[in-house]
Amino acid sequence: MKPIKVGLLGLGTVGTGVVRIVENHQHDLLSQSGSPIEIAKILVQNKNKTRNISVSSDILTENPWDVVENPEIDVIVEVMGGIELSKKLILTALDHGKHIVTANKDLMALHGPEILARAAEKRCDVFYEASVAGGIPIIRTLVEGFTSDRITKIMGIVNGTTNYILTKMSQEGAAYEDVLKEAQQLGYAEADPTSDVEGFDAARKMTILSTLGFRANVALSDVEVRGISKVSKEDIAYGKRLGYEVKLLGIAERQDDAISISVQPTMVKHSHPLASVNGVFNAVYVYGEAVGETMFYGPGAGEMPTATSVVADLVAVVRNLNLGINGRRGFVPYKEKKLKTDEQIVSKNFILLHVEDKAGVLAQITQVFAEYEVSLESVLQHPNRTNSLAEIIVITHDANKAAMTKVLKRFESMDVVQAIKSVYRVEG
Amino acid sequence: MKPIKVGLLGLGTVGTGVVRIVENHQHDLLSQSGSPIEIAKILVQNKNKTRNISVSSDILTENPWDVVENPEIDVIVEVMGGIELSKKLILTALDHGKHIVTANKDLMALHGPEILARAAEKRCDVFYEASVAGGIPIIRTLVEGFTSDRITKIMGIVNGTTNYILTKMSQEGAAYEDVLKEAQQLGYAEADPTSDVEGFDAARKMTILSTLGFRANVALSDVEVRGISKVSKEDIAYGKRLGYEVKLLGIAERQDDAISISVQPTMVKHSHPLASVNGVFNAVYVYGEAVGETMFYGPGAGEMPTATSVVADLVAVVRNLNLGINGRRGFVPYKEKKLKTDEQIVSKNFILLHVEDKAGVLAQITQVFAEYEVSLESVLQHPNRTNSLAEIIVITHDANKAAMTKVLKRFESMDVVQAIKSVYRVEG
Repeated sequence: MKPIKVGLLGLGTVGTGVVRIVENHQHDLLSQSGSPIEIAKILVQNKNKTRNISVSSDILTENPWDVVENPEIDVIVEVMGGIELSKKLILTALDHGKHIVTANKDLMALHGPEILARAAEKRCDVFYEASVAGGIPIIRTLVEGFTSDRITKIMGIVNGTTNYILTKMSQEGAAYEDVLKEAQQLGYAEADPTSDVEGFDAARKMTILSTLGFRANVALSDVEVRGISKVSKEDIAYGKRLGYEVKLLGIAERQDDAISISVQPTMVKHSHPLASVNGVFNAVYVYGEAVGETMFYGPGAGEMPTATSVVADLVAVVRNLNLGINGRRGFVPYKEKKLKTDEQIVSKNFILLHVEDKAGVLAQITQVFAEYEVSLESVLQHPNRTNSLAEIIVITHDANKAAMTKVLKRFESMDVVQAIKSVYRVEG
Repeated sequence: MKPIKVGLLGLGTVGTGVVRIVENHQHDLLSQSGSPIEIAKILVQNKNKTRNISVSSDILTENPWDVVENPEIDVIVEVMGGIELSKKLILTALDHGKHIVTANKDLMALHGPEILARAAEKRCDVFYEASVAGGIPIIRTLVEGFTSDRITKIMGIVNGTTNYILTKMSQEGAAYEDVLKEAQQLGYAEADPTSDVEGFDAARKMTILSTLGFRANVALSDVEVRGISKVSKEDIAYGKRLGYEVKLLGIAERQDDAISISVQPTMVKHSHPLASVNGVFNAVYVYGEAVGETMFYGPGAGEMPTATSVVADLVAVVRNLNLGINGRRGFVPYKEKKLKTDEQIVSKNFILLHVEDKAGVLAQITQVFAEYEVSLESVLQHPNRTNSLAEIIVITHDANKAAMTKVLKRFESMDVVQAIKSVYRVEG
C-alpha cells in the first residue's frame, strides 16, 4: 500500500509529539485512515541540534522549500508557529496541491479566510483543530456536531496561562505579580507574557471559534480585548464572597443576526460549569437554541494533547485522500457578519467603587444607575478599613453597554466617587 | 436543486423535534449540506391523533413499509424506539439502499454489529449520534476527534433519570423511594423505572461508547451492571463527609489489550469534574494516553437536544450523498475484544460494615484486608447511635476485584460482622 507522505514544518514541542504518535500508532492510524502514514521531511532550524527524539538525519532539512515544493509530499503539517513565513509556506504548499494541517491560531485568526479560499480553489484540505483548546476537538464539534442547531453563545476558557494564574490567585489569595513570576519559573508563562495576560492569545482563538459557531467571517479586530493584568486579589476575594470566580472568558454572542465577541476577566457564578475549570485546563461552553447548554473540557496545550489533535486532522486528510474528496468538506462561512451596537450588548456587571464615607452617597450612586435605567440586583456598602472611604459593590441586572458606559462616565465626574476600582462582566 | 427525501419513523417527542428543526432551519441545512431536505413520509400509530405540530396529513402513514420500501425516500430517520420492529424496518430500508439515522440505543447496543455490517454491504450510512447522551456529540468525538489517540478510560453519567435522583438525594438528604416518586410525577422517571434505575439503559449506552472508544465489538452482556435502587441516604451522607458524591457511572477501562465495562453507583471525589454534573445532565469523561483528561457535558435527553443530534447526522448523510461517499466513512471495529479477568480489574473501594462494638474487632477486620493484600487508604470507626453496633468505613487503595470478592466473602462468614452495609467503587 502506498504510504501517504507528510512534510512536517517544525520539530519543537508539538512537532516532536506528532512524530511520536505517527511512529508509535502506525497500525491504528492505518486501520483508521486506510493508508500507512510516513513522515518524509522535517523542516528544522538546525539539523545538528541534539533532540530528545530519534529521527533519521536524512529527512531533516533547513530549507523550507525542500518541504513545501517537494513533489513527493502529500500533506504539510505546520507546527512551527509565526505568521509571515508560515503563511507563505502554506500558500505555496497549497499551490503545489498539498493538503494542510496546522496548529497555528495566530495564522488562522489573521489569515484564515485567505488560506481557506486558496485551499478551496486548489481543492485541498486545511484542518486546524489544534489551533484552539489543544486536545479538545471543539472545531469538529462546532462544524460537524452542531450543524443542525443555531448557536447563540460561546464562552471559552481558552488560555491556560491566564487560567493557571487566576486559579492560583483564587486558591491562595496571592497577588497577580507573584503568581505570574511563579508561572514563568514553571514554564506556564513566557518571559514576555503580554500575549497571554493581555488576552490577545484568547482573542485569536475566539476569532476562530466565533467564525465557526456563527458561520460568518469574524476578524480579530472585531474582538474587544481586556486582559487580567489589572485583576487584584481584592477583586477575587470580593467575587468569592458573593459567589463568583474571576475567569478570563472569551465571550461570543449572537442575538438575531447581530454578534459581539470579547475577551475579558469575568465574574462567573460558582454554580456555572466554567467556574470549576481550574489550572491550565481549557473549556468551551456552547449554548445552542435547540441543544441548550453544553461544555467541552480538556487540556489546552502541551506536547501530546496538541499532537493528538494534529494527527486526528492528519487522519481526516488521509481518509479524504482515499475517498478522493479533499477540499470538498471544508467549512465555508455563509452568513454576513453584523456586529452588535453597544446598545445591543447586554450583560450583568460587577462594579466596585471607593466613595466618601458620608450620608447620602449611596443614594447619589444608585440614583445614577436609575437615571440610565440600569436596575440593580444587589448593593453592598461597608467602610474600608485602611482608609476613610467606603466601598460600594454593585451587581446590576442585565444592562446594555452604552448605558453602563454613561453610568461609569458620570461616576468619574462625581466628587464623592474617589475611584472606580473595578468593573467586571458577570456570567452564570 | 433536487431535495433529499426523508422518511421519518415515529412522531413522538424526538420525531416532533426533528420536524421542527428541518422546517425552521431549511436555509442553514441547505447551506451546510448542499441540498434541501424534505420530510416526505412519517410513520405514525394513529393518523388521526391531534398533535402539537402541524404536518400535512398526506405524508402521514400507519404502514411502515410505505416508508422503508418507498422508492422516493433517500434517508430513514428512526425515532420510534423498540427493538424487533425497528430492526426489521432498518434492515429492509438498507436492503432498499436507504441511509439510516437512528436515536435507538437499545437497537444499536443489541444489534449494532449486524446493522453496521448490512450497511457496509449495501454501501449505506448508519449514524446514531443521538443514541448516547442526547445532545452531546460524543460519538463523533470518539470516532473522529480521538482517532490518533488510544483511549484507556471512559466514564459516563449517561442516564439522566438516575443522575436526577442521586442529585436530589444528595442535595436534600432525601430517601431513594421519595425522590423516585417525585421524579415519576415530574416525568423524569417512567412508571416502570427498572431500565433506568437498575442501570440497564446506561449499560446499553456504555456498550456503544466502549465499542467506539476501544475499537472492538463490545456486547451488552460484557457489561457488569448494578443500579441505584439500593443506594441509601446514609451512604450518600457518608460519602459526602469523606469528600465524595455518589454517581451512577458507566466505566469502561482498558489496560494493554484487556478491557472491562461496568455500570455501578460510584463514590466520585468532589474535585473530579464528574462530581459536579447534576440533575438530568449527562457527561462523558474520556482519558486518552496522549490527550489526558477530557470531558463532554450537555443535556442527555429531551425533544430538541436529541433532535439536534439526529439532524446533525442527517446533514452528514446528505453531505455524503452529495460527495458520493455514503457507506465509506463508517466506523469499523478492528481490534479483537479481550475482557479483563477479575484479577485485572482494579479500583479503590468504599466499604461500610456494621460490626459488634467490642475490643479487637477492628484488628480482625483490617487483618482480613492484609491477608488478601488489599492495602487501606483510610479507616473510620464509630458507634452507631441507633443500635449497639459499631460502624467501620474503609476506603482501600487500588485493589483487584478477585481479592475484594474474597475479602467480602470472609466478612460474610465472620460472626463479628453483622452486615456488609454497602460497597462502592471509588473514582477520582
